[in-house]
Amino acid sequence: MSFTVTVRCARRAIGTRWLLVLVSLCVCVCVCRAASPQEEEDSAMENIVTEKRAEESHRQDSADLLIFILLLTLTILTIWLFKHRRFRFLHETGLAMIYGLLVGVVLRYGIHMPRDGTNVILNCNVNASPATVLINVSGKFYEYTLKRVITSNGNKVDDMSDNENEMLHKVTFDPEVFFNILLPPIIFHAGYSLKRRHFFRNMGSILAYAFLGTVISAFIIGLLMYGTVTLMKHVGHLAGEFFFTDCLFFGAIVSATDPVTVLAIFHELQVDADLYALLFGESVLNDAVAVVLSSSIVAYQPAGDNSHTFEGMALLKSFGMFLGVFSGSFSLGVATGIVTALISKFTKLRDFQLLETALFFLMSWSTFLLAEACGFTGVVAVLFCGITQAHYTFNNLSPESQDRTKQLFELLNFLAENFIFSYMGLTLFTFHNHVFNPMFIVGAFLAVFLGRAANIYPLSLLLNLGRRHKIRSNFQHMMMFAGLRGAMTFALSIRDTATYARQMMFSTTLLIVFFTVWICGGGTTQMLSCQRIRVGVDSDQDNSMSIAEGPERRSTKQESAWLFRIWYNFDHNYLKPILTHSGPPLTATLPPCCGPLARFLTSPQAYENEGQLKDDDSDLILTDDINLAYGDITVNTDASGVHTSSAGFASGMMSDDLDRELAYGDNEVVMRGTRLVLPMDDSEPPLKDPHF
Amino acid sequence: MSFTVTVRCARRAIGTRWLLVLVSLCVCVCVCRAASPQEEEDSAMENIVTEKRAEESHRQDSADLLIFILLLTLTILTIWLFKHRRFRFLHETGLAMIYGLLVGVVLRYGIHMPRDGTNVILNCNVNASPATVLINVSGKFYEYTLKRVITSNGNKVDDMSDNENEMLHKVTFDPEVFFNILLPPIIFHAGYSLKRRHFFRNMGSILAYAFLGTVISAFIIGLLMYGTVTLMKHVGHLAGEFFFTDCLFFGAIVSATDPVTVLAIFHELQVDADLYALLFGESVLNDAVAVVLSSSIVAYQPAGDNSHTFEGMALLKSFGMFLGVFSGSFSLGVATGIVTALISKFTKLRDFQLLETALFFLMSWSTFLLAEACGFTGVVAVLFCGITQAHYTFNNLSPESQDRTKQLFELLNFLAENFIFSYMGLTLFTFHNHVFNPMFIVGAFLAVFLGRAANIYPLSLLLNLGRRHKIRSNFQHMMMFAGLRGAMTFALSIRDTATYARQMMFSTTLLIVFFTVWICGGGTTQMLSCQRIRVGVDSDQDNSMSIAEGPERRSTKQESAWLFRIWYNFDHNYLKPILTHSGPPLTATLPPCCGPLARFLTSPQAYENEGQLKDDDSDLILTDDINLAYGDITVNTDASGVHTSSAGFASGMMSDDLDRELAYGDNEVVMRGTRLVLPMDDSEPPLKDPHF
Repeated sequence: MSFTVTVRCARRAIGTRWLLVLVSLCVCVCVCRAASPQEEEDSAMENIVTEKRAEESHRQDSADLLIFILLLTLTILTIWLFKHRRFRFLHETGLAMIYGLLVGVVLRYGIHMPRDGTNVILNCNVNASPATVLINVSGKFYEYTLKRVITSNGNKVDDMSDNENEMLHKVTFDPEVFFNILLPPIIFHAGYSLKRRHFFRNMGSILAYAFLGTVISAFIIGLLMYGTVTLMKHVGHLAGEFFFTDCLFFGAIVSATDPVTVLAIFHELQVDADLYALLFGESVLNDAVAVVLSSSIVAYQPAGDNSHTFEGMALLKSFGMFLGVFSGSFSLGVATGIVTALISKFTKLRDFQLLETALFFLMSWSTFLLAEACGFTGVVAVLFCGITQAHYTFNNLSPESQDRTKQLFELLNFLAENFIFSYMGLTLFTFHNHVFNPMFIVGAFLAVFLGRAANIYPLSLLLNLGRRHKIRSNFQHMMMFAGLRGAMTFALSIRDTATYARQMMFSTTLLIVFFTVWICGGGTTQMLSCQRIRVGVDSDQDNSMSIAEGPERRSTKQESAWLFRIWYNFDHNYLKPILTHSGPPLTATLPPCCGPLARFLTSPQAYENEGQLKDDDSDLILTDDINLAYGDITVNTDASGVHTSSAGFASGMMSDDLDRELAYGDNEVVMRGTRLVLPMDDSEPPLKDPHF
Repeated sequence: MSFTVTVRCARRAIGTRWLLVLVSLCVCVCVCRAASPQEEEDSAMENIVTEKRAEESHRQDSADLLIFILLLTLTILTIWLFKHRRFRFLHETGLAMIYGLLVGVVLRYGIHMPRDGTNVILNCNVNASPATVLINVSGKFYEYTLKRVITSNGNKVDDMSDNENEMLHKVTFDPEVFFNILLPPIIFHAGYSLKRRHFFRNMGSILAYAFLGTVISAFIIGLLMYGTVTLMKHVGHLAGEFFFTDCLFFGAIVSATDPVTVLAIFHELQVDADLYALLFGESVLNDAVAVVLSSSIVAYQPAGDNSHTFEGMALLKSFGMFLGVFSGSFSLGVATGIVTALISKFTKLRDFQLLETALFFLMSWSTFLLAEACGFTGVVAVLFCGITQAHYTFNNLSPESQDRTKQLFELLNFLAENFIFSYMGLTLFTFHNHVFNPMFIVGAFLAVFLGRAANIYPLSLLLNLGRRHKIRSNFQHMMMFAGLRGAMTFALSIRDTATYARQMMFSTTLLIVFFTVWICGGGTTQMLSCQRIRVGVDSDQDNSMSIAEGPERRSTKQESAWLFRIWYNFDHNYLKPILTHSGPPLTATLPPCCGPLARFLTSPQAYENEGQLKDDDSDLILTDDINLAYGDITVNTDASGVHTSSAGFASGMMSDDLDRELAYGDNEVVMRGTRLVLPMDDSEPPLKDPHF
């Protein structure tokens, strides 16, 4: 028996042991990485030196990436340990940051290695900076590409080329990597896994928080920061320029809240679904708003020399740009989503799951590239593409591809997210030009707090006037508390760190992210119990409850306002039949003059099963059976195959339908966190439906 | 009725219509891409110009990638059409090349745009070429990074900066992208999806073809090319230097055969499994051999000035390097595979599939980076890592993760492969420095043919002396015919195109790839029927047949030589129990003195089911039951939990066991192509087993 106990203990200890091994491996790699460049300095032949240097640089890049991969591996193992022991005070992203910090400390203080003087300063009289330079070194031409502009004074450049740690220099990635490689999968996944039922139910409120709220928050923070900066200037704590537009820019970037940490805990604890939807919807959409807002602020350029004064024209231009970029990105995203839906509907690609998944992936990616190539914002386009894909294309995919695509984006999201957070940790110690200004930091924390408050409380007050199902004060406090800043804020702030103002913003933003993720993220469980928000609500149970219970139902009906109902009807009667295999046949919903077109666009499946119109569209199965039972669409088929119906489409009946559709549409939603999503189990709910 | 027909026709035509739309979209993007740079030339402010240029360059990069993504989308849709209509003359890779070619033609001849003169030539007296250059342009510092060395003479550089098409210049990727991003998933997938049963059964022959055969082929081709080059020099058709090492290098790179095209068809037609295994095993392993061989040849540098004469010492050094790099990469790959297996065995990570999949992915990727960072070959390491993962780690994963990892790498492989092939097509027209020399090309085609022949026929002759189950002459002809060149050859040849010799090689290699993929790949079906090779062999049926039939069985026993049997026993008794949850308990197989260690390493599962030792390891279930029935391991459990056994481990009985294990171990193998692999169905085969 004692043997068994020993084995158990040893087995338990082994998890921790792996972590230790990995940590030491990480450190090893760091040290090796630092040591290797000195090995190969002897060779004399110039050509070989160049070749070796290229090889060396490749090796070091590999080692850099390896550090991150080991960090991620470490994070994964620790997360597992935490999950295994149900330890909820630190989310995986917080953990990734801690590991990043540790490696950053090692790189910064553990290893010191002077730069090997490969930087050469050439003075030349070119009047513009070319994108590529050919340098003639004793007969041979070397092609150089422009990497960045160093706008600081000469001292700093000398400083950089001499005293800087080569190691630190190398571990930093091109900021654009975050924007072009790591953010898109995160944002797409957010859109693709949006809980549609609760999202649509609370759409008005979510849009208000995301659009109006973010703009309010950005301006409040901007104004407060301008006050702080003015104060700093008077006291003499400001070492560089800091304009009002910079303040507004700061407001815009720190207004983007991040859903990851809080929502993972919400999901695990099964917190009230409406609160979940409000927070998730807001944080997904406000990312998009913040991106476009910040780029519009950057584009605010008054004419003439006094480039930092206020000017009405320029403001208007900025506002126009905001609208243009946002709507452009939105429509591009929706358009590629629709194209994918049409392709997947009209080809029999579903017989070949690999092709189907590949097409889905490529089309989603192409949204990003298309938007970037057109000068719109790829990230925003990808978000709306994700939502469209989830709403239409998803229904056309084969079950295998549905799983595949969900799992693929879940994995990409997980990796990208943890990479960003561990890089954040690393960057606190390895970024060169940190400007930590205590006064600015205190001001920023205060401003962020007030900005969030000015977003949540007044808007909630206003929204509650219109909502029957009020947003209670404990929900408001929770939303206030859950305004974490994360990947998007970081990516926006690291994008440009050339000026003093931007450097100060970057350093402060880092601290804000750390604070919110660790303190607010870690305190979520406490805050939930403190605010007496019900947990352990089974989402499915909640579904059937909200349908079974009379009062709740009516409140939903109330909420889905006329605008939304019109959209819903349009979607249900025209868009879904056009883009998916489901819905009432278009021949029934379109006016008779469009007959041939309607016949062409309607999927054969829409006719085939007269008894059960939409067998292919998993999230409409239930709705539709009931639809027929209620008789608000009566399909008549005559001999020629033309379908007509006597439809009460815009009638009040529809909103029951709507409610039910939204209720059952979430089973396929990918959950954040680590649970595998099983194919929807559609055997249970109908039995609980009171109409049967 | 006529209405139905119209709809059908329209529906059929729609696939083709999508293709047209996409083609035109592709062309549109190309044109827009070319037109955009000229838009924003007016602005005067220098800073804004730089910013705009950076933005412009980003936009163009997006558009470049977009072209490829549209190309891939197009390819996917066309493949679907082909598969849908069972059209087998053109494989997807061949198709991707054709589309690439078309876009290349458009880029080359359709759009002409002079380069906008951003290249500036600086003459400076730096004695070495630095990795980064800071250029002081009127007070501001611009940081440039080294991109490439242009070793040609001054004229060419001028030529480049003036007359070159900016467009063409931009669509070319850094060759290292192929090696570091696109090849690893392809090669890993090849290793991960290796058909283990037939691979192990024919291991001796596969190793002979892959190692000996590739070296023979490389040297034969090298010698023949040296002859050609010498002839060309006499005739005066050679415009630059071409050394013997270059010839050998060419031999090495074109000796890497590519499995993709032929094997996809083999899989679809269910060709004889042994032939499949021979071809697949050979082409997977010879990629590794070719990579290491070519890098060893490049490293062949005789001392002193006469750097292109023969020298024994240098040859020996090259040979040593070959062995060192190969074994280093091999052991690194196997090592990370083992580490992953241990982690997945000793942690309960399988409860969280997302974490498990992420860990698997990261560990596999880290193999590549680790090997590159250590100066070994990442691609080779990744191959062996894939094989190890499939053999050990795969058994520890949860069923969901098994599916997820397979599907993930299948998708990555598919995308990477098609990307490479479409880039190949594109590059025929967009690469600047093509050197098409008719004599060299004819010589190369001849040499490749003879080299392949010198690999297959003599080796088959030798191997048939030892094999009972002979490699028949129609198999040999088929192997000869199926020696396509693909992604690896291309990646090796594009890696360095600096010298005249390398440029000529690159152009010739491209033609060889085109020819083999289109002609040999397209003619596979014809060749199969011409050689009367049986098709439509169900792999499972084949399994049971080869076991049920007496003579076949004995031949297999014959084949699995003593060396292999020793390895198998070692694997079965020690490695599998250590690395997976399966196998006989180590307490039974290790000597008693290792008791505590054995207890620690043995998985609880190995004890739990005494009746059925290895329930967790899907590919051993059957073997083991029979094992117990045959009694070659008798497990005795005493009260303290220590297991002992009287084992006849190295006995001849084992090879039945081995054969059976290999026979049923393939169900979980991912098939190339587009079929989804279902979890293994392990209910049928035991019934067919003659021992029951």
